Amino acid sequence: MQLVTAGESHGKALVGIIEGLPSNLAIDIEKINKYLALRQSGYGRGARQKIECDKVEIVSGVRNLSTLGSPLCFAVQNKDYQNWKGIMAPEGADITQRTLTKVRPGHADLTGLKKYAHTDARNILERASARETAVRVVAGTIARQYLSELGVQISGYVKGVCGIRDNKVYTFEQLEDAKKSKLFMLDKETEDKAVKLIDELKQNGDTAGGLIEIRVKGLKSGFGSCMSYNQKLDAILCGALMSVQAIKGVEVGLGFGCANLAGNAVHDAIYIKDGKYYRNTNRAGGIEGGMSNGEEIVLTCAMKPIPTLMKGLDTVDYLTGEPAIASTERSDVTAICAAEIILESVTAFTLADVVSKRLGGDNMQEVIERYKLLKD
Amino acid sequence: MQLVTAGESHGKALVGIIEGLPSNLAIDIEKINKYLALRQSGYGRGARQKIECDKVEIVSGVRNLSTLGSPLCFAVQNKDYQNWKGIMAPEGADITQRTLTKVRPGHADLTGLKKYAHTDARNILERASARETAVRVVAGTIARQYLSELGVQISGYVKGVCGIRDNKVYTFEQLEDAKKSKLFMLDKETEDKAVKLIDELKQNGDTAGGLIEIRVKGLKSGFGSCMSYNQKLDAILCGALMSVQAIKGVEVGLGFGCANLAGNAVHDAIYIKDGKYYRNTNRAGGIEGGMSNGEEIVLTCAMKPIPTLMKGLDTVDYLTGEPAIASTERSDVTAICAAEIILESVTAFTLADVVSKRLGGDNMQEVIERYKLLKD
Amino acid sequence: MQLVTAGESHGKALVGIIEGLPSNLAIDIEKINKYLALRQSGYGRGARQKIECDKVEIVSGVRNLSTLGSPLCFAVQNKDYQNWKGIMAPEGADITQRTLTKVRPGHADLTGLKKYAHTDARNILERASARETAVRVVAGTIARQYLSELGVQISGYVKGVCGIRDNKVYTFEQLEDAKKSKLFMLDKETEDKAVKLIDELKQNGDTAGGLIEIRVKGLKSGFGSCMSYNQKLDAILCGALMSVQAIKGVEVGLGFGCANLAGNAVHDAIYIKDGKYYRNTNRAGGIEGGMSNGEEIVLTCAMKPIPTLMKGLDTVDYLTGEPAIASTERSDVTAICAAEIILESVTAFTLADVVSKRLGGDNMQEVIERYKLLKD
Amino acid sequence: MQLVTAGESHGKALVGIIEGLPSNLAIDIEKINKYLALRQSGYGRGARQKIECDKVEIVSGVRNLSTLGSPLCFAVQNKDYQNWKGIMAPEGADITQRTLTKVRPGHADLTGLKKYAHTDARNILERASARETAVRVVAGTIARQYLSELGVQISGYVKGVCGIRDNKVYTFEQLEDAKKSKLFMLDKETEDKAVKLIDELKQNGDTAGGLIEIRVKGLKSGFGSCMSYNQKLDAILCGALMSVQAIKGVEVGLGFGCANLAGNAVHDAIYIKDGKYYRNTNRAGGIEGGMSNGEEIVLTCAMKPIPTLMKGLDTVDYLTGEPAIASTERSDVTAICAAEIILESVTAFTLADVVSKRLGGDNMQEVIERYKLLKD
Repeated sequence: MQLVTAGESHGKALVGIIEGLPSNLAIDIEKINKYLALRQSGYGRGARQKIECDKVEIVSGVRNLSTLGSPLCFAVQNKDYQNWKGIMAPEGADITQRTLTKVRPGHADLTGLKKYAHTDARNILERASARETAVRVVAGTIARQYLSELGVQISGYVKGVCGIRDNKVYTFEQLEDAKKSKLFMLDKETEDKAVKLIDELKQNGDTAGGLIEIRVKGLKSGFGSCMSYNQKLDAILCGALMSVQAIKGVEVGLGFGCANLAGNAVHDAIYIKDGKYYRNTNRAGGIEGGMSNGEEIVLTCAMKPIPTLMKGLDTVDYLTGEPAIASTERSDVTAICAAEIILESVTAFTLADVVSKRLGGDNMQEVIERYKLLKD
Repeated sequence: MQLVTAGESHGKALVGIIEGLPSNLAIDIEKINKYLALRQSGYGRGARQKIECDKVEIVSGVRNLSTLGSPLCFAVQNKDYQNWKGIMAPEGADITQRTLTKVRPGHADLTGLKKYAHTDARNILERASARETAVRVVAGTIARQYLSELGVQISGYVKGVCGIRDNKVYTFEQLEDAKKSKLFMLDKETEDKAVKLIDELKQNGDTAGGLIEIRVKGLKSGFGSCMSYNQKLDAILCGALMSVQAIKGVEVGLGFGCANLAGNAVHDAIYIKDGKYYRNTNRAGGIEGGMSNGEEIVLTCAMKPIPTLMKGLDTVDYLTGEPAIASTERSDVTAICAAEIILESVTAFTLADVVSKRLGGDNMQEVIERYKLLKD
Repeated sequence: MQLVTAGESHGKALVGIIEGLPSNLAIDIEKINKYLALRQSGYGRGARQKIECDKVEIVSGVRNLSTLGSPLCFAVQNKDYQNWKGIMAPEGADITQRTLTKVRPGHADLTGLKKYAHTDARNILERASARETAVRVVAGTIARQYLSELGVQISGYVKGVCGIRDNKVYTFEQLEDAKKSKLFMLDKETEDKAVKLIDELKQNGDTAGGLIEIRVKGLKSGFGSCMSYNQKLDAILCGALMSVQAIKGVEVGLGFGCANLAGNAVHDAIYIKDGKYYRNTNRAGGIEGGMSNGEEIVLTCAMKPIPTLMKGLDTVDYLTGEPAIASTERSDVTAICAAEIILESVTAFTLADVVSKRLGGDNMQEVIERYKLLKD
Repeated sequence: MQLVTAGESHGKALVGIIEGLPSNLAIDIEKINKYLALRQSGYGRGARQKIECDKVEIVSGVRNLSTLGSPLCFAVQNKDYQNWKGIMAPEGADITQRTLTKVRPGHADLTGLKKYAHTDARNILERASARETAVRVVAGTIARQYLSELGVQISGYVKGVCGIRDNKVYTFEQLEDAKKSKLFMLDKETEDKAVKLIDELKQNGDTAGGLIEIRVKGLKSGFGSCMSYNQKLDAILCGALMSVQAIKGVEVGLGFGCANLAGNAVHDAIYIKDGKYYRNTNRAGGIEGGMSNGEEIVLTCAMKPIPTLMKGLDTVDYLTGEPAIASTERSDVTAICAAEIILESVTAFTLADVVSKRLGGDNMQEVIERYKLLKD
């Protein structure tokens, strides 16, 4: 499975093509739209999310809600394009409007201008924008459907916002409640504090990041590889998570905690009951030797605060070379809920790719049959 | 540039092939052997490191110490193979000896046995072994030579061992001293404490991991991409670092620290002097918008303790299905120094690959010329 | 450069995404539409070509007719979709209509049904259809624009139709006239014979293939590789040409003629004049040692007759298992002119990919500059 | 499955690494050496083949003649290296000896010198040499063992030498006799003529190429794809065959013959008996719609004459820029038998890769089980 994404933030549409899906996978469009809506939800978002109400439009690869085995192409239209057509249209546009030259720290603006030999950071930010992640959410939701046919589920929650952190431990089932809350958090008290902090940050024209935990349940052991470094499951998953805008740290299981503990307190003893192996702990986060070990996969990601501050950071005007206050393109305080959905989606897609490489299979019946035959 | 690695821990040799090196790159064999020796050094290592004294042997792709432009193949012989020939030889061996069935928690043993339908974990651990990293050190050192022709340098140090942590901040130049110390640490006092702790752990048959910081100096801006998710520099580097055995967490710049701070305290304001952009802070760790931004690249990795404890963890015998104490294959307390060298090497190779994709170029003269012409 | 294609023949649209284009490449939409029209032209085509009059719609990656450096997505709408919506729609369709079970020899029908576990060959043929090549023509025309900035041009003509063959030799400049004729042939007399034959075949409900020659002019030497088997220019080009529907043979330069001649009559002696190397012959077809050698690249392809014959071939009904006459989905006698355009396009795209890997470069200025500096 | 090859013609050794082999595949070293010997045999070869008597040495990935599931590395030592050490050694060599500057037409010499910025074509020809194909024969023979466990066999023969052609049609079983003859031909009379012609060419210092047919028996239908252009079986196979040195044309089934016939005479009608589909003809050469269709796969390749002629072709001295007679590095008249073995090997490896992508599977038991369950 391979996902190619395209589309500018204020262009006509965002588009994705997934290659490698088996035939006869049922596609649930409502579910995709639900996750697209979740990506746009959460406390701390600004005006753009009200303009767009993303819906997926499937273009190819699916007939009567079932995959054909051909590349699945889908689009998410940008409603705002109507307002931006004159400035953004591929076939002709007035590129002297809405230029951005007061390059924003923390963004691709400055480096992008030099790399692509542009003079207007509009040409950079339109693609570097986190709006691209709508495509990854669609692909991830389709991947979820593939995985769920094998009994594999993905969930997660927001563990912290700008230093306000929930240190409790939750079962996989409890995670489901997260998406009902304002900030996708599970502890009401912590969330209230976080909401209050976000309000304060908004007052100050400042922004927040946070901590997100992603979990995978039901995956059999043996996905990934202990034989070739570039097929290790932890390497593949963490690389993918790090490709999400604003993610600056990733860990598996105990993660950085491992650096502080002796081996005795880190490794998960193995037991057996009725011929089935099990562990009483899961500090490894479900991955040992570069492979899933049958336990829940636990991934934690650190998100940096949104780099566009209403207050404006010190910068330079690329055109004039003079000191300036950075431009402000949008006004979210935090996109931590969006990130939670995106990271779940990216985990789902990345995992589905790893699963499909091990199983092969041209149609869904074959895929399911092969998965069942794997030694658990 | 692509690296394929092969070789079992007690097989004939470890082998690597690098494709995509330009011609006319000078190869410094002494330097490669120096890094191989560093990989085997450091306080806390056991007996195996004394048996092997790794030397690289170049097989192809180089003539008279200069690359031809053809695939560069190299080998690192396993001296210990003489003792293991009867058990490990490809062309015929007594596979009933030195079997391992008391599968070790934290290793690939159990999962590998099921995945590859083996009954002796020897068939798994021989490849899953960290000895494979010798190949990555060779490749990384060659990549260093490529990068150094462009003025790019890589260094690092051990920041913490089993919770004993050095929180000071160092210039790139200061890092050079690290490799002269017992534990590749920079603060003598902290190191002394760490050495003492390692002695204690050894007494207890226990093991330690730690924290490692890797830094890259001199890389121009614009490497990586803000346009395609799978070409982002942070995603590529972190995926690669996570592929190193025992690494459980990776962060860029402030990393997990970002999750606790407001935007104001995270993003690096941009200034200009004499037409050259600069920053006073580098919390981004040299990567913004998926691209190098011209500042030092700063990567921190968490290493878990070695999963083979002399004390032995609870496990199950795969053959009998009975409870057992895990087998012990080797006796290091910590391999944190080895990891430091490996992570530097992996960073070097991964970066050289990214650099060579952007520059193209068939010979080293062309590569250097193109790099010089990049807008800084 | 990478091209991913999607879209069913009677679905909403055909879509392509090109990754890896540099920024600041001018996009000529009229030129793309011209080649799309040429793909639909030529003597011997049936009804479908009159329904569709393909136009490209650029969705992303381009602003004001210039590339941004981001993935370029484009669509070619299927006008006929209005008539097929009820049968083909992703979101719900009546899949009991327009089924095809009398599987057609020479098509993907029978094998596809088994592979993808479908029961209606509609689910196979919609994607296996040659209509997918409209995407490749768009991508190829964009690639042409990239190449033409470097002074590289691609042309071709129809050399034979169903055994009626033009054995004359033409200069690159003469090839331009081909597209003005009915069958993209250069010799009027031969073409007249071919037209007459096509008329006869139509009467018989039969079909024709033919011979196509593709030429590339202006490419410097050194593209491809003599060092790694999977980077050889002839391997890459011929693999790509063979991926076009109905192509059953590919040759470079003298091609199969080489098998009949002694070395003396095959290899192209090398001469020099004013410091510039040249040849008096070009039997190698511009590729030696897996690399372009600076001479014109000459590729000849054999196209099989269209496998849907109005007369109908013997087959089996997949549903009933009974002997049947193959279904007929469309009524062209020959698509040799379409193939000529597609093969030119595929050559252009494949070559642009090879060129961009050697040159690297993020923006068009950089690409051109680097190309100029190559030793010719 | 992926094969990376390395090694210069007069370097220490040729090396290959195969990634992606399942565990528990039996490795038959005698069989590999048999094919290596066949590669060196055949009428018309010169002195070098007498110096080298290639034997494979397996370095990793195999224990006790069975694969581990790890990368399989192997070497073929160059015995001649003892004589070339002083000139070729990676660690230091006298590069002023055995230089080649009278660049040979038909070789990589001239283009390689410019591309890699060398001044001695020794640095080019050592890798561009056909000796690299020894690696591909080893890999192909291992792939054969993988395929033969699934009931898939590969064979072939020499169909023509320098215009002397055998037009008979043979069953797959008859092909086996080819390797017992001097020129791997099946018709005694034609072979006698070819032998005589080779003798004459030798007298003239001239060389010969020829025609080779490769056949695959027993492959189930559905390998390849009708959905994505770069996964089509014919594209993949022909690209791979064209990557073999000296191959200038490739065709599938009727191939170029298709260009001369009407559809009626080209497509293979489908019949059914006892629920099993069959054809009475196989003009498609076993591939329809980019997939294997269950019939024998038939591939024909044209090989050009060896470009090093004892008689010497006109050329230029790269050093002096003066007209010269091309250098002669070796003295074969034809390597058609070697090519036959190499093309079989490349077909085997390429096919095994395609098969393994569809089946997945980590161990051989799993692979076989999955293959059996495919709908035939």
